[in-house]
Amino acid sequence: MKMIKNAVGRLVPDEVNGVKQIPYKGVGKYIPDGFTARTKIRSCAEFPSDGNKVVKSLKEALKKAGIKDGMTISTHHHLRNGDLLTNKLFDEIKSLGIKNIRWFPSASFPCHSHLIKYLEDGTIHHIEGSMNGPLGRFTTEGKMKGVGVLRSHGGRYQSIQDGEVHIDIAIIAAPEADPFGNANGVNGKSAFGGTGFSLADSEYADRVIVVTDNLQPFPVVPWQIQGNNVDYVVEVESLGDPAKIVSGTTEVTKSPDRLLIAEYVAQFMEEAGIMKDGFSFQAGSGGTNLAFALFLKEKMKAKGIKARFIRGGSTKYLVEMLEEGLTDYILDGQTFDLEGVRSMRENHNHVSTSPFTSYNYHGKGNFASIIDAVVLGATEVDVNFNANVVSHSDGYLLHGIGGWQNCMFSKCTILAIPSFRDRIPVILDEVTTLCAPGELVDVIVTERGIAINPRRKDLLAAVKNSNLPIRSIKEIQKEVYEICGGAPAKPLVDESNVVAVIKWVDGTVIDSVFKLEI
Amino acid sequence: MKMIKNAVGRLVPDEVNGVKQIPYKGVGKYIPDGFTARTKIRSCAEFPSDGNKVVKSLKEALKKAGIKDGMTISTHHHLRNGDLLTNKLFDEIKSLGIKNIRWFPSASFPCHSHLIKYLEDGTIHHIEGSMNGPLGRFTTEGKMKGVGVLRSHGGRYQSIQDGEVHIDIAIIAAPEADPFGNANGVNGKSAFGGTGFSLADSEYADRVIVVTDNLQPFPVVPWQIQGNNVDYVVEVESLGDPAKIVSGTTEVTKSPDRLLIAEYVAQFMEEAGIMKDGFSFQAGSGGTNLAFALFLKEKMKAKGIKARFIRGGSTKYLVEMLEEGLTDYILDGQTFDLEGVRSMRENHNHVSTSPFTSYNYHGKGNFASIIDAVVLGATEVDVNFNANVVSHSDGYLLHGIGGWQNCMFSKCTILAIPSFRDRIPVILDEVTTLCAPGELVDVIVTERGIAINPRRKDLLAAVKNSNLPIRSIKEIQKEVYEICGGAPAKPLVDESNVVAVIKWVDGTVIDSVFKLEI
Repeated sequence: MKMIKNAVGRLVPDEVNGVKQIPYKGVGKYIPDGFTARTKIRSCAEFPSDGNKVVKSLKEALKKAGIKDGMTISTHHHLRNGDLLTNKLFDEIKSLGIKNIRWFPSASFPCHSHLIKYLEDGTIHHIEGSMNGPLGRFTTEGKMKGVGVLRSHGGRYQSIQDGEVHIDIAIIAAPEADPFGNANGVNGKSAFGGTGFSLADSEYADRVIVVTDNLQPFPVVPWQIQGNNVDYVVEVESLGDPAKIVSGTTEVTKSPDRLLIAEYVAQFMEEAGIMKDGFSFQAGSGGTNLAFALFLKEKMKAKGIKARFIRGGSTKYLVEMLEEGLTDYILDGQTFDLEGVRSMRENHNHVSTSPFTSYNYHGKGNFASIIDAVVLGATEVDVNFNANVVSHSDGYLLHGIGGWQNCMFSKCTILAIPSFRDRIPVILDEVTTLCAPGELVDVIVTERGIAINPRRKDLLAAVKNSNLPIRSIKEIQKEVYEICGGAPAKPLVDESNVVAVIKWVDGTVIDSVFKLEI
Repeated sequence: MKMIKNAVGRLVPDEVNGVKQIPYKGVGKYIPDGFTARTKIRSCAEFPSDGNKVVKSLKEALKKAGIKDGMTISTHHHLRNGDLLTNKLFDEIKSLGIKNIRWFPSASFPCHSHLIKYLEDGTIHHIEGSMNGPLGRFTTEGKMKGVGVLRSHGGRYQSIQDGEVHIDIAIIAAPEADPFGNANGVNGKSAFGGTGFSLADSEYADRVIVVTDNLQPFPVVPWQIQGNNVDYVVEVESLGDPAKIVSGTTEVTKSPDRLLIAEYVAQFMEEAGIMKDGFSFQAGSGGTNLAFALFLKEKMKAKGIKARFIRGGSTKYLVEMLEEGLTDYILDGQTFDLEGVRSMRENHNHVSTSPFTSYNYHGKGNFASIIDAVVLGATEVDVNFNANVVSHSDGYLLHGIGGWQNCMFSKCTILAIPSFRDRIPVILDEVTTLCAPGELVDVIVTERGIAINPRRKDLLAAVKNSNLPIRSIKEIQKEVYEICGGAPAKPLVDESNVVAVIKWVDGTVIDSVFKLEI
């Protein structure tokens, strides 16, 4: 393994877990020259003619799927922190004596700290997928056998489609399924909305196992997962804890600073002329984002403006906008609360999307670049507008990438962030981990002012005569450093020990995470 | 090229248009051992970031797609006999001076007789796809340069998926589309319902051109065709003649014989115990099939029986059953009348399917084998229950296969046919063209009685004490021969000159069509 300096000056390995890597080359600079993955041709003659693929247990399904050492097993994270299935899955894998699994989740959550023992005993070799919380901590401390690979939602689709990651067995948790394997996430006690994160897995894995706690007669509709891609169906008592799968309701921030940020973002979108008839925007589920949506809604109502579409993850606030006629459509990558799930089930202008449609950079375009404005968070930004979303200034890898990198391609990318957190400045000279290049970040909105990327002369001109607190990023940084007593100390890391890499949306490596010296 | 006798004793060529063929081996006997087709990896960097893929004309789109001699160009037949686009397409191809195109439609109709001049002048080399009417006549007379290849809907999907047919440029006629290329068939003046026949084309073709007469802002929903698979979008004044695209209404037969057949089929399904709560059936759009659905409906109402699902092509009669609560779902492969289109647009228990979900034999199962009973037509059957759907007893190839072969896998396959047509017996010693092996045909219902395949002892036992006119196939044949004056004369053909082959659902060759000596 050799370390290479990539196009944003970051040191990245030329090889990860024995696989050759391409260093990041710049936005749109790496043009792939190959063919998508192929799958083995199957025959209906090999499957039950009555369409009944139910087997009696997850263990039996794993055995029928031919599980063996060193395989890649994928899961999705729509069950979020309520996921009991993945833990049970690895209990079964352990009981079968299987070793060295590459676990390929679309993300992992604190509930998966159960799996640390399997990382320690060699059942799991390494994780490729976002690691929220304990598993990220475990990884940063250099305890994982292999190197973690973090990809965006779109990057995960791209890696499967392009054959970079071959999934041997995909496990798909389905709140509703039929014996043929058709499945969705909108019906049943474990309903979570759309199940787009498992689409690529269902399409490309050698063997696909659908696990459901709500088996219904063929056909269950909508078939977000198509039974034609499924090998086995397993019925279980429960997939997880519904309260942790989706919130009953999502909460708007009460912090005065965050409310101010949210108000600035909404005002910016109005004054910059983005908020106009037929426009589109995306905002996530964080408390600031929810508040932003409420402020924007009032502005839209006041001016009689209707959006063409809103991108979720959706919440009751977006659902209200759909139901009040403030948007024609909601397009959801995921669904954050029960109202969102209900709306997706009942309202066919509330459409479930997938990383293929929304985010895959190796397609003939995707939805992300069509959106007028996206409001995102970040753990850190730097004075060159580069941004970090996975690690903290102490060097710990603690957050997933989600669709964040993919969303950067919107026509106006806004990072809505506090200027400091726990007395640690958020605007630095250089981010700890570079997850998105500054050229894609158009606006940084803090409670102390709004910094517009100098590249966006159009936006600077558009808000020149507004009463928005437009400031330079360095000016805001200086003020924050004065309050916090300067830059945070750089974490002490072992640069010879890469514990994880961050992929860009095109599969190239944009940055490394190094082992913390603790 | 060498002729080989296949597993049903038919002479088939070992090579067609220079491509090696596998002779038919029996139902479920050929297990493929390879990988599905791959497509070139694309990058969003190569596509407009605002998602606008509109180009100014079909000719420009063809040029951008790199059209050249010898390419394979695909179209779908959802516009049926109202299709003006395909004729226009080949006018453009001719005007570009392109030669030797393999035209790969999902089917062709009499309106496409416009293309005979392009078959004659070398613009089109040959057709792979069902040929209804004039093009079939042209082919049977040995006038086409290459050999025709007829596939079922599922076989067409299979051939694309498996890489047997590589599509260079797919042309998708869309009654509604957005500039990104998302498209559907349910909205707009040319609405035809679901657009499943073009799904494989959109997924696997090198370049995909969506042509619409109803361009709407992003996103049009449902996205039956995903813009992420589309290269170019072209707006035209009109795709075709709406009256010929779908019927205003579909007509039930008035013929006393056909009504009797329809009544027998319904009665058979009741007495054989197929019609029971939660059952499923499929019936096409012919006048006999429509009458059957009406008879069955009355029986279901009388007994308080509800189906789980009905497979269309749907018509107002099936829609009424859905709306009256006689079925939970309609799953449509295509839509035959305006009421069907309306219902698919408005009722989300009326679901559009594709040949992938319904019919692809090289998948992990498909819907066709799950269905309790299917009612089909045939041009001929023989005393061994083998059936023909493409040619007449005079040797002319005049009909498409459609989903007919695929539907044969239902739990009870019923052919509802008159025992003779125009004084020509329909039950022969041997069919002119063998499109489905007798082992898959369970019941033949004629106005002179019902013949049950001796293999289906269960069905024979189930209706033993009914008052249905159960007879042996030979007995019915004998009676018909007496009326018609014996078997029809065999057509005079040149067995050294194969003008078309019939593929089985697994891509093997089940029969040949020979040049007629006329």
